[in-house]
Amino acid sequence: MGDTKSTGEGNSALGKKSFKRSKSHFADRVTADGRDGWPVAAGRYRLVVSRACPWASRAVISRRLLGLEEALPMAVTDPIQDDRSWRFTLDPGGRDPVLGIRYLAEAYEAREPGAPGGVSVPAVVDVASGRLVTNDYQQLTLDLATEWRDLHREGAPDLYPEGLRDEIDEVVEEVYEDVNNGVYRAGFATGQEEYEAAYEGVFRRLELLSGRLAERRYLVGDTITEADIRLFTTLVRFDAVYHGHFKCNRHKLTEDPVLWAYARDLYQTPGFGDTVDFDHIKRHYYQVHEGINPTRIVPLGPDLSGWLTSHGREELGGRPFGDGSPPGPVREGEEVPAAGRP
Amino acid sequence: MGDTKSTGEGNSALGKKSFKRSKSHFADRVTADGRDGWPVAAGRYRLVVSRACPWASRAVISRRLLGLEEALPMAVTDPIQDDRSWRFTLDPGGRDPVLGIRYLAEAYEAREPGAPGGVSVPAVVDVASGRLVTNDYQQLTLDLATEWRDLHREGAPDLYPEGLRDEIDEVVEEVYEDVNNGVYRAGFATGQEEYEAAYEGVFRRLELLSGRLAERRYLVGDTITEADIRLFTTLVRFDAVYHGHFKCNRHKLTEDPVLWAYARDLYQTPGFGDTVDFDHIKRHYYQVHEGINPTRIVPLGPDLSGWLTSHGREELGGRPFGDGSPPGPVREGEEVPAAGRP
Repeated sequence: MGDTKSTGEGNSALGKKSFKRSKSHFADRVTADGRDGWPVAAGRYRLVVSRACPWASRAVISRRLLGLEEALPMAVTDPIQDDRSWRFTLDPGGRDPVLGIRYLAEAYEAREPGAPGGVSVPAVVDVASGRLVTNDYQQLTLDLATEWRDLHREGAPDLYPEGLRDEIDEVVEEVYEDVNNGVYRAGFATGQEEYEAAYEGVFRRLELLSGRLAERRYLVGDTITEADIRLFTTLVRFDAVYHGHFKCNRHKLTEDPVLWAYARDLYQTPGFGDTVDFDHIKRHYYQVHEGINPTRIVPLGPDLSGWLTSHGREELGGRPFGDGSPPGPVREGEEVPAAGRP
Repeated sequence: MGDTKSTGEGNSALGKKSFKRSKSHFADRVTADGRDGWPVAAGRYRLVVSRACPWASRAVISRRLLGLEEALPMAVTDPIQDDRSWRFTLDPGGRDPVLGIRYLAEAYEAREPGAPGGVSVPAVVDVASGRLVTNDYQQLTLDLATEWRDLHREGAPDLYPEGLRDEIDEVVEEVYEDVNNGVYRAGFATGQEEYEAAYEGVFRRLELLSGRLAERRYLVGDTITEADIRLFTTLVRFDAVYHGHFKCNRHKLTEDPVLWAYARDLYQTPGFGDTVDFDHIKRHYYQVHEGINPTRIVPLGPDLSGWLTSHGREELGGRPFGDGSPPGPVREGEEVPAAGRP
């Protein structure tokens, strides 16, 4: 359940207790057979994301790689939440043009008035009823890769290949615990020991991943999978926000030659970097977390130009899209503005 | 006037107005001719410093390079000030063994009760009377280099050579404004514009200095001078505190090959690195400035091992100590503890 004030990304994260990420409260699934009442259907749902949020960004990338842009239209929230959480202040009139709401909370309320757990992205909303279907970010991308298969573009990659699922599941579990969520546990720690334990976990895992990726282009198999998407969304934020703001500062991503080349390789792959808005990322973390950045000043650095430099990873072989092909250009209206690009 | 809560390094720095460093209130000089009433004399004064403070660290380095350890004994304060400012809590009984006081403020009070301007290091205290003589950090190192000449060790370098003073003065003025103090203006900015102006000044100046130092080993002439000392004390803190804590994060010092090699060269020169306590530096900045780091958590990074790697600057020539020689080993009792070293 990503990037909601009430699950950790606001002052409340700096209370007495250590940081714990809430489980998603709404875990319905949109499936091919519609067994939870939500069958896959083109145009029926709206994917609400923040480009700042690493959990939501997984879904943004999967949707692009799989060519689900038309089947699952997307709403992008303002990177800065207010006390009612994610809002559509980037849209004309401050309302999502399809759902007609000003706050994502309205879809949560429509689903279950007074629901506990806060408002988080990514969220899938049923357009006709305006009700939230799911905010289960862990399941969502797996379902996009498998349950939505009939609506995939031609040449869509298999992001969760059956023969590799055990290995992918194992890798993503470790990456989740130590890296995806580890940086948050470091950044929202309220005590020195808690911080240090999280920090050590982050860098121990990154070191292992760096070793794993030294001789192979992707984390599992020889193509891009769910595992790469999940590691990428943390790596791409590492130097911009986790290094300084979350004190994960043993070294920058740019100082680990293997992981830095791996991250650049993905960044430069259609569907990854073209979804990343560094402006949204930086403003969200530095302006929302007043508990760790009371001035709300957003750093000008780091210099991002390195993201576009050559990475040399082609030499390791691998077939990025397997038997498929890269996605085409970014859909009109979904381009990341210049302010968010290197 | 370095590192005093009331001149900027505490919550007060985050008020409405932009950060301005106070002038030193006590600008008496200790001179060879004693014209201010304070003649140079071995053992008469005590130099009070914090190893955390870049302004005080200039004096610590000069004293070592010039071999003034016996003539001007030194007291090292706790890196963490309390609401009465710098204190001698590292000493047995929490009192400086020579001055017999618990707080540096007592020497300020003895000089001028109720004096404005706060308590800062470096401070020179007259041992017999217990009165502060000067806290003028800008003049202090120049006087150590020139007025204290009769007490220098054999082989002491000339840190402020007559023929180069105009050039040194010009360089240190630019370095002060944009770099030494620029990082503080960035870190203590209360608004985005103020921060950005300071940040741009820091990196514009560092780029010019990097160009200047690409082909020459030292800033002015071909030996170590006052100018190098003043740039070093900021550079050595850059990645440890200014990069993250003060948001000077365009890039790390380690990412500028010239300045990083220059800083390592000095760090590895006797009298520089052997005075640096990274533990004091990090704990001071991160624990004292609650206004910008409310959790007071001290980052575990950065990895400091690079400070000891070879720098290759010998190839540029230069004569570090001119016609003199390096200082001997650190005086017993003044060694930096292992926790503060790479």
